Amino acid sequence: MQLTSETLENAIEQLAKLPGMGRKTAQRMAMHLLKQSDDRVNQLAQSLIDLKTKIKYCSVCFTVTDTDPCAVCTNAKRKTGTICVVEDPKDVYVIEKMNEFRGRYHVLGGVISPMENVGPNDIRIKELIARINDEDEGVEELILALNPDAEGEATSFYINKMVKPFGVRVTRIAHGIPVGSELEFIDEATLNRAFAGRVTF
Amino acid sequence: MQLTSETLENAIEQLAKLPGMGRKTAQRMAMHLLKQSDDRVNQLAQSLIDLKTKIKYCSVCFTVTDTDPCAVCTNAKRKTGTICVVEDPKDVYVIEKMNEFRGRYHVLGGVISPMENVGPNDIRIKELIARINDEDEGVEELILALNPDAEGEATSFYINKMVKPFGVRVTRIAHGIPVGSELEFIDEATLNRAFAGRVTF
Repeated sequence: MQLTSETLENAIEQLAKLPGMGRKTAQRMAMHLLKQSDDRVNQLAQSLIDLKTKIKYCSVCFTVTDTDPCAVCTNAKRKTGTICVVEDPKDVYVIEKMNEFRGRYHVLGGVISPMENVGPNDIRIKELIARINDEDEGVEELILALNPDAEGEATSFYINKMVKPFGVRVTRIAHGIPVGSELEFIDEATLNRAFAGRVTF
Repeated sequence: MQLTSETLENAIEQLAKLPGMGRKTAQRMAMHLLKQSDDRVNQLAQSLIDLKTKIKYCSVCFTVTDTDPCAVCTNAKRKTGTICVVEDPKDVYVIEKMNEFRGRYHVLGGVISPMENVGPNDIRIKELIARINDEDEGVEELILALNPDAEGEATSFYINKMVKPFGVRVTRIAHGIPVGSELEFIDEATLNRAFAGRVTF
């Protein structure tokens, strides 16, 4: 086999390293970009460089932001005394898209996982405690919105235990049957949770 | 919904424009890149910019190349008098991967398609004729390796007609049942071709 372009090969290799990308898809993308205008390709490349140069982490809630503190933390209308605790900045994004939650966030930047050597001090729990202690924040409720897996559960339990002395209300988003799904396709663990979390009709 | 980072949003939008990418995948990729090192992201961005700045088209066969003429065209061992005619540079790539064909290529850069207003003069047919006329090339056989669709067929017929006066042998790659597939899953058109193209056992 003879390679006519190392440059093309290199672009394919770089693209193929992205999550969920196979070599064939990377190849298709590189070939597609070859046919695009210089402007289009430069815009894409610049937008990726910007990711690393322009994006900061909010010093209050630790989500990704262009300005520090972030737009949610500086929005006076959202000082509701409610903090939603999430694992990752992408969870903030998902919850904001719902357009329902009016409080603020706290991004842990991970979950407690003994298997991966992540302890309570490796994620932003002490920063959360500091916010609860901060009278300006006026925290009244913590909504835990971590993933319902072993690590998420352990982290939720840990936070609940740590926060108890401060008299803040700690809640957890409901786990149950997704809207629009059918009972017969729901796994037992979810169904179990749905029964345990049943509410008065 | 409150966007905390326009920069992130922009990167997601740019990535989502790539072929085969949905918004969710683009989001996952952007979030993934955010966590990568500056070096890694710069390498990716640079490799994309290189696509447009470093890659040329070979002035002999018109495939993508870093050097003009390309590595295949300058390889003395491949002056076999055989030219494989393909639609697109990616076809060169696919055939090279097979590691079997020892001739050279001619990339048409498209196929004749009245529906899309592409006529014989819009693709590199006159350049192909010029190569056949060139005694240095010593072309003895043209292997047509276009896609077996209406446009590919029409283009193959047209080239065959145009090349006839020059006394060059024109062949076409076989269409038939893919290796490893089963008869019952083959469409009628392919099966028809397989019968028409049967060879003595």
